[in-house]
Amino acid sequence: MLEVEIKAKVEIEPIEKRLGELGAKFINRTHQKDVYFRHPCHDFKKTDEALRVRKVKDEYFLTYKGVKLDPETKTRKEIQIRVEKGIFNLLKNLGFSPVREVEKWRSFYRWKDLKIYLDEVKGLGNFLELEGTSWEDKEKMFGILQKLGIEKRKLTRKSYLELLESQAEK
Amino acid sequence: MLEVEIKAKVEIEPIEKRLGELGAKFINRTHQKDVYFRHPCHDFKKTDEALRVRKVKDEYFLTYKGVKLDPETKTRKEIQIRVEKGIFNLLKNLGFSPVREVEKWRSFYRWKDLKIYLDEVKGLGNFLELEGTSWEDKEKMFGILQKLGIEKRKLTRKSYLELLESQAEK
Repeated sequence: MLEVEIKAKVEIEPIEKRLGELGAKFINRTHQKDVYFRHPCHDFKKTDEALRVRKVKDEYFLTYKGVKLDPETKTRKEIQIRVEKGIFNLLKNLGFSPVREVEKWRSFYRWKDLKIYLDEVKGLGNFLELEGTSWEDKEKMFGILQKLGIEKRKLTRKSYLELLESQAEK
Repeated sequence: MLEVEIKAKVEIEPIEKRLGELGAKFINRTHQKDVYFRHPCHDFKKTDEALRVRKVKDEYFLTYKGVKLDPETKTRKEIQIRVEKGIFNLLKNLGFSPVREVEKWRSFYRWKDLKIYLDEVKGLGNFLELEGTSWEDKEKMFGILQKLGIEKRKLTRKSYLELLESQAEK
Protein backbone atom coordinates (compact mmCIF):
# COMPACT_ATOMS: atom_id res chain seq x y z
CA MET A 1 0.00 0.00 0.00
CA LEU A 2 1.07 3.57 -0.63
CA GLU A 3 1.27 5.76 2.44
CA VAL A 4 1.05 9.46 1.53
CA GLU A 5 2.04 11.41 4.60
CA ILE A 6 2.87 14.93 5.70
CA LYS A 7 4.10 15.91 9.13
CA ALA A 8 4.77 19.13 11.03
CA LYS A 9 5.82 20.11 14.54
CA VAL A 10 2.83 21.82 16.22
CA GLU A 11 1.28 22.99 19.48
CA ILE A 12 -1.41 20.47 20.51
CA GLU A 13 -4.15 22.77 21.90
CA PRO A 14 -4.71 25.23 19.01
CA ILE A 15 -4.67 22.35 16.50
CA GLU A 16 -7.20 20.33 18.56
CA LYS A 17 -9.47 23.37 18.56
CA ARG A 18 -9.17 23.87 14.79
CA LEU A 19 -9.73 20.17 14.08
CA GLY A 20 -13.02 20.48 16.00
CA GLU A 21 -14.04 23.55 13.94
CA LEU A 22 -13.10 21.72 10.72
CA GLY A 23 -15.47 18.87 11.65
CA ALA A 24 -12.75 16.22 11.99
CA LYS A 25 -14.05 13.23 13.96
CA PHE A 26 -12.11 12.15 17.04
CA ILE A 27 -11.64 8.37 17.01
CA ASN A 28 -9.36 7.44 19.94
CA ARG A 29 -6.17 8.12 21.88
CA THR A 30 -3.67 5.31 22.25
CA HIS A 31 -0.21 4.71 23.62
CA GLN A 32 2.14 3.32 20.97
CA LYS A 33 5.56 1.83 21.51
CA ASP A 34 7.61 1.22 18.38
CA VAL A 35 10.86 -0.70 18.07
CA TYR A 36 12.89 -0.22 14.88
CA PHE A 37 15.18 -2.96 13.63
CA ARG A 38 18.48 -3.14 11.79
CA HIS A 39 18.63 -5.56 8.83
CA PRO A 40 21.30 -8.26 9.17
CA CYS A 41 22.77 -7.59 5.70
CA HIS A 42 21.84 -4.16 4.48
CA ASP A 43 21.76 -0.78 6.14
CA PHE A 44 18.17 0.57 6.30
CA LYS A 45 19.54 4.00 7.22
CA LYS A 46 21.37 4.17 3.88
CA THR A 47 18.57 2.61 1.84
CA ASP A 48 15.90 4.83 3.47
CA GLU A 49 13.82 1.78 4.44
CA ALA A 50 12.57 0.76 7.89
CA LEU A 51 11.31 -2.28 9.76
CA ARG A 52 9.26 -1.70 12.86
CA VAL A 53 7.27 -3.59 15.50
CA ARG A 54 4.48 -1.47 17.01
CA LYS A 55 2.76 -2.32 20.28
CA VAL A 56 -0.68 -0.78 20.87
CA LYS A 57 -2.27 -2.11 24.09
CA ASP A 58 -1.84 -5.88 23.73
CA GLU A 59 -1.64 -5.88 19.96
CA TYR A 60 1.52 -6.12 17.85
CA PHE A 61 2.04 -4.99 14.26
CA LEU A 62 4.99 -5.58 11.94
CA THR A 63 5.59 -2.81 9.39
CA TYR A 64 7.95 -2.46 6.45
CA LYS A 65 8.46 1.04 5.02
CA GLY A 66 10.02 1.51 1.60
CA VAL A 67 12.09 4.39 0.23
CA LYS A 68 10.48 7.86 0.12
CA LEU A 69 9.00 8.60 -3.29
CA ASP A 70 8.25 12.33 -3.26
CA PRO A 71 10.34 15.44 -2.45
CA GLU A 72 7.47 17.25 -0.65
CA THR A 73 5.99 14.50 1.48
CA LYS A 74 6.87 11.34 3.42
CA THR A 75 5.11 9.20 0.79
CA ARG A 76 6.42 5.61 0.66
CA LYS A 77 5.35 2.02 0.27
CA GLU A 78 4.08 0.58 3.52
CA ILE A 79 3.20 -3.03 4.35
CA GLN A 80 1.71 -3.65 7.78
CA ILE A 81 0.45 -6.91 9.24
CA ARG A 82 -0.86 -7.96 12.61
CA VAL A 83 1.53 -10.29 14.41
CA GLU A 84 2.07 -11.65 17.94
CA LYS A 85 4.54 -10.86 20.72
CA GLY A 86 6.85 -13.70 19.58
CA ILE A 87 7.85 -11.53 16.58
CA PHE A 88 10.67 -10.00 18.69
CA ASN A 89 12.25 -13.40 19.30
CA LEU A 90 11.67 -14.48 15.71
CA LEU A 91 13.34 -11.34 14.27
CA LYS A 92 16.28 -11.79 16.66
CA ASN A 93 16.81 -15.34 15.41
CA LEU A 94 16.78 -14.08 11.81
CA GLY A 95 19.62 -11.67 12.67
CA PHE A 96 17.59 -8.45 12.96
CA SER A 97 18.56 -6.31 15.95
CA PRO A 98 16.72 -3.42 17.60
CA VAL A 99 18.16 0.05 16.96
CA ARG A 100 15.83 2.48 18.69
CA GLU A 101 12.45 2.86 20.40
CA VAL A 102 9.86 5.54 19.65
CA GLU A 103 7.15 6.04 22.26
CA LYS A 104 4.15 8.30 21.86
CA TRP A 105 0.55 9.11 22.76
CA ARG A 106 -1.45 9.36 19.53
CA SER A 107 -4.83 11.10 19.15
CA PHE A 108 -6.51 9.79 16.02
CA TYR A 109 -9.04 11.85 14.00
CA ARG A 110 -10.75 11.23 10.67
CA TRP A 111 -11.67 13.85 8.10
CA LYS A 112 -13.40 12.40 5.02
CA ASP A 113 -11.11 9.54 3.93
CA LEU A 114 -7.97 11.01 5.48
CA LYS A 115 -6.39 10.08 8.79
CA ILE A 116 -5.18 12.83 11.11
CA TYR A 117 -2.85 12.11 14.04
CA LEU A 118 -1.82 14.39 16.88
CA ASP A 119 1.27 12.82 18.39
CA GLU A 120 3.01 13.56 21.68
CA VAL A 121 6.38 11.91 21.09
CA LYS A 122 8.65 11.14 24.04
CA GLY A 123 11.83 13.16 23.76
CA LEU A 124 10.75 15.01 20.60
CA GLY A 125 7.61 17.09 21.23
CA ASN A 126 4.24 17.34 19.49
CA PHE A 127 3.51 16.64 15.85
CA LEU A 128 0.62 16.61 13.41
CA GLU A 129 0.53 13.86 10.79
CA LEU A 130 -1.90 13.71 7.86
CA GLU A 131 -2.17 10.40 6.08
CA GLY A 132 -3.76 9.30 2.83
CA THR A 133 -3.41 6.29 0.56
CA SER A 134 -3.18 7.78 -2.96
CA TRP A 135 -1.45 10.64 -4.78
CA GLU A 136 -4.90 12.30 -5.14
CA ASP A 137 -5.01 12.65 -1.35
CA LYS A 138 -1.93 14.90 -1.41
CA GLU A 139 -3.88 17.97 -2.54
CA LYS A 140 -6.59 17.44 0.10
CA MET A 141 -3.90 17.11 2.73
CA PHE A 142 -2.29 20.42 1.79
CA GLY A 143 -5.82 21.94 1.88
CA ILE A 144 -6.28 20.80 5.50
CA LEU A 145 -2.81 22.05 6.38
CA GLN A 146 -3.80 25.53 5.18
CA LYS A 147 -7.11 25.40 7.10
CA LEU A 148 -5.18 24.49 10.24
CA GLY A 149 -2.93 27.51 9.72
CA ILE A 150 0.28 25.48 9.33
CA GLU A 151 2.84 26.89 6.90
CA LYS A 152 4.41 24.57 4.34
CA ARG A 153 7.89 25.45 5.58
CA LYS A 154 7.02 23.82 8.93
CA LEU A 155 6.80 20.39 7.28
CA THR A 156 9.42 17.72 7.80
CA ARG A 157 10.02 14.59 5.71
CA LYS A 158 11.90 12.96 8.54
CA SER A 159 10.45 10.04 10.47
CA TYR A 160 10.38 10.06 14.28
CA LEU A 161 13.20 7.54 14.15
CA GLU A 162 15.31 9.88 12.00
CA LEU A 163 14.46 12.90 14.19
CA LEU A 164 15.49 10.99 17.33
CA GLU A 165 18.67 9.76 15.65
CA SER A 166 19.73 13.21 14.44
CA GLN A 167 19.00 14.55 17.94
CA ALA A 168 21.19 11.82 19.48
CA GLU A 169 24.03 12.67 17.08
CA LYS A 170 24.16 16.32 18.22
CA MET B 1 9.93 -23.12 22.42
CA LEU B 2 11.56 -26.50 22.04
CA GLU B 3 10.00 -28.81 19.50
CA VAL B 4 10.87 -32.45 20.18
CA GLU B 5 9.86 -34.42 17.12
CA ILE B 6 10.21 -37.86 15.59
CA LYS B 7 9.03 -38.85 12.18
CA ALA B 8 8.69 -42.03 10.14
CA LYS B 9 7.33 -43.04 6.75
CA VAL B 10 4.21 -45.17 7.34
CA GLU B 11 1.09 -46.68 5.84
CA ILE B 12 -1.93 -44.57 6.88
CA GLU B 13 -4.58 -47.25 7.52
CA PRO B 14 -2.82 -49.61 9.96
CA ILE B 15 -1.53 -46.61 11.96
CA GLU B 16 -5.02 -45.05 12.13
CA LYS B 17 -6.34 -48.34 13.48
CA ARG B 18 -3.60 -48.62 16.11
CA LEU B 19 -4.04 -44.99 17.18
CA GLY B 20 -7.70 -45.79 17.83
CA GLU B 21 -6.75 -48.86 19.91
CA LEU B 22 -4.20 -46.78 21.83
CA GLY B 23 -6.94 -44.28 22.77
CA ALA B 24 -5.45 -41.34 20.88
CA LYS B 25 -8.06 -38.61 20.37
CA PHE B 26 -8.74 -37.46 16.81
CA ILE B 27 -8.83 -33.63 16.70
CA ASN B 28 -9.12 -32.58 13.04
CA ARG B 29 -7.90 -32.98 9.46
CA THR B 30 -6.62 -29.88 7.69
CA HIS B 31 -4.98 -28.94 4.41
CA GLN B 32 -1.67 -27.15 4.98
CA LYS B 33 0.36 -25.28 2.42
CA ASP B 34 3.86 -24.27 3.49
CA VAL B 35 6.27 -21.96 1.70
CA TYR B 36 9.92 -22.05 2.78
CA PHE B 37 12.12 -18.99 2.35
CA ARG B 38 15.77 -18.34 1.62
CA HIS B 39 17.50 -15.77 3.89
CA PRO B 40 18.97 -12.78 2.00
CA CYS B 41 22.40 -13.10 3.66
CA HIS B 42 22.91 -16.58 5.03
CA ASP B 43 22.17 -20.00 3.68
CA PHE B 44 19.54 -21.77 5.82
CA LYS B 45 20.39 -25.04 4.09
CA LYS B 46 23.96 -24.83 5.40
CA THR B 47 22.99 -23.54 8.87
CA ASP B 48 20.19 -26.15 9.24
CA GLU B 49 17.64 -23.41 10.02
CA ALA B 50 14.33 -22.72 8.26
CA LEU B 51 11.81 -19.94 7.79
CA ARG B 52 8.31 -20.93 6.73
CA VAL B 53 4.89 -19.41 6.10
CA ARG B 54 2.07 -21.92 6.67
CA LYS B 55 -1.45 -21.43 5.34
CA VAL B 56 -4.25 -23.41 7.03
CA LYS B 57 -7.68 -22.43 5.69
CA ASP B 58 -7.58 -18.61 5.84
CA GLU B 59 -4.97 -18.41 8.58
CA TYR B 60 -1.27 -17.72 8.15
CA PHE B 61 1.61 -18.63 10.49
CA LEU B 62 5.25 -17.56 10.38
CA THR B 63 7.69 -20.11 11.79
CA TYR B 64 11.41 -20.03 12.48
CA LYS B 65 13.14 -23.37 13.09
CA GLY B 66 16.60 -23.49 14.64
CA VAL B 67 19.38 -26.04 14.21
CA LYS B 68 18.68 -29.64 15.18
CA LEU B 69 19.86 -30.43 18.71
CA ASP B 70 19.74 -34.21 19.00
CA PRO B 71 21.16 -37.06 16.90
CA GLU B 72 18.07 -39.29 17.33
CA THR B 73 15.21 -36.85 16.77
CA LYS B 74 14.25 -33.71 14.86
CA THR B 75 14.36 -31.68 18.10
CA ARG B 76 15.01 -27.96 17.51
CA LYS B 77 14.02 -24.50 18.66
CA GLU B 78 10.76 -23.39 17.08
CA ILE B 79 9.14 -19.96 17.18
CA GLN B 80 5.72 -19.69 15.57
CA ILE B 81 3.43 -16.67 15.43
CA ARG B 82 0.12 -15.96 13.76
CA VAL B 83 0.47 -13.42 10.94
CA GLU B 84 -1.58 -12.16 7.97
CA LYS B 85 -1.44 -12.78 4.21
CA GLY B 86 0.69 -9.63 3.72
CA ILE B 87 3.65 -11.53 5.24
CA PHE B 88 4.58 -12.79 1.75
CA ASN B 89 4.95 -9.25 0.41
CA LEU B 90 6.72 -8.09 3.57
CA LEU B 91 9.29 -10.94 3.43
CA LYS B 92 9.89 -10.24 -0.27
CA ASN B 93 10.67 -6.59 0.51
CA LEU B 94 13.14 -7.69 3.20
CA GLY B 95 15.00 -9.77 0.61
CA PHE B 96 13.70 -13.23 1.54
CA SER B 97 12.74 -15.36 -1.45
CA PRO B 98 10.63 -18.53 -1.65
CA VAL B 99 12.55 -21.77 -2.25
CA ARG B 100 9.98 -24.54 -2.15
CA GLU B 101 6.38 -25.41 -1.25
CA VAL B 102 5.24 -28.34 0.87
CA GLU B 103 1.58 -29.31 0.62
CA LYS B 104 -0.13 -31.89 2.78
CA TRP B 105 -3.29 -33.18 4.40
CA ARG B 106 -2.68 -33.51 8.13
CA SER B 107 -4.77 -35.61 10.55
CA PHE B 108 -4.16 -34.38 14.06
CA TYR B 109 -4.50 -36.65 17.15
CA ARG B 110 -3.70 -36.08 20.82
CA TRP B 111 -2.40 -38.67 23.25
CA LYS B 112 -1.89 -37.28 26.78
CA ASP B 113 0.19 -34.11 26.24
CA LEU B 114 1.72 -35.27 22.96
CA LYS B 115 0.66 -34.33 19.46
CA ILE B 116 0.40 -37.01 16.80
CA TYR B 117 0.15 -36.16 13.10
CA LEU B 118 -0.62 -38.43 10.18
CA ASP B 119 0.52 -36.55 7.08
CA GLU B 120 -0.21 -37.24 3.43
CA VAL B 121 2.50 -35.17 1.77
CA LYS B 122 2.19 -34.26 -1.91
CA GLY B 123 5.03 -35.88 -3.85
CA LEU B 124 6.48 -37.67 -0.80
CA GLY B 125 3.98 -40.13 0.64
CA ASN B 126 2.59 -40.72 4.13
CA PHE B 127 4.32 -39.96 7.42
CA LEU B 128 3.73 -40.15 11.14
CA GLU B 129 5.02 -37.32 13.31
CA LEU B 130 5.09 -37.34 17.11
CA GLU B 131 5.62 -33.99 18.76
CA GLY B 132 6.40 -32.94 22.32
CA THR B 133 7.77 -29.79 23.92
CA SER B 134 10.41 -31.07 26.38
CA TRP B 135 13.23 -33.59 26.54
CA GLU B 136 11.11 -35.62 28.97
CA ASP B 137 8.60 -36.19 26.16
CA LYS B 138 11.21 -38.05 24.11
CA GLU B 139 10.87 -41.27 26.09
CA LYS B 140 7.05 -41.21 25.89
CA MET B 141 7.34 -40.70 22.14
CA PHE B 142 9.56 -43.73 21.68
CA GLY B 143 7.05 -45.65 23.82
CA ILE B 144 4.21 -44.77 21.43
CA LEU B 145 6.39 -45.65 18.47
CA GLN B 146 6.86 -49.14 19.86
CA LYS B 147 3.12 -49.52 20.55
CA LEU B 148 2.41 -48.52 16.96
CA GLY B 149 4.83 -51.20 15.77
CA ILE B 150 7.21 -48.79 14.07
CA GLU B 151 10.88 -49.77 14.19
CA LYS B 152 13.44 -47.16 15.21
CA ARG B 153 15.36 -47.63 11.97
CA LYS B 154 12.32 -46.32 10.08
CA LEU B 155 12.80 -42.84 11.61
CA THR B 156 14.11 -39.91 9.63
CA ARG B 157 15.53 -36.63 10.96
CA LYS B 158 14.91 -34.91 7.65
CA SER B 159 12.20 -32.29 7.27
CA TYR B 160 9.68 -32.51 4.41
CA LEU B 161 11.58 -29.64 2.80
CA GLU B 162 14.85 -31.62 2.95
CA LEU B 163 13.17 -34.82 1.72
CA LEU B 164 11.67 -32.96 -1.25
CA GLU B 165 14.99 -31.27 -1.99
CA SER B 166 17.00 -34.50 -1.92
CA GLN B 167 14.34 -36.09 -4.15
CA ALA B 168 14.65 -33.19 -6.62
CA GLU B 169 18.46 -33.58 -6.69
CA LYS B 170 18.22 -37.21 -7.81
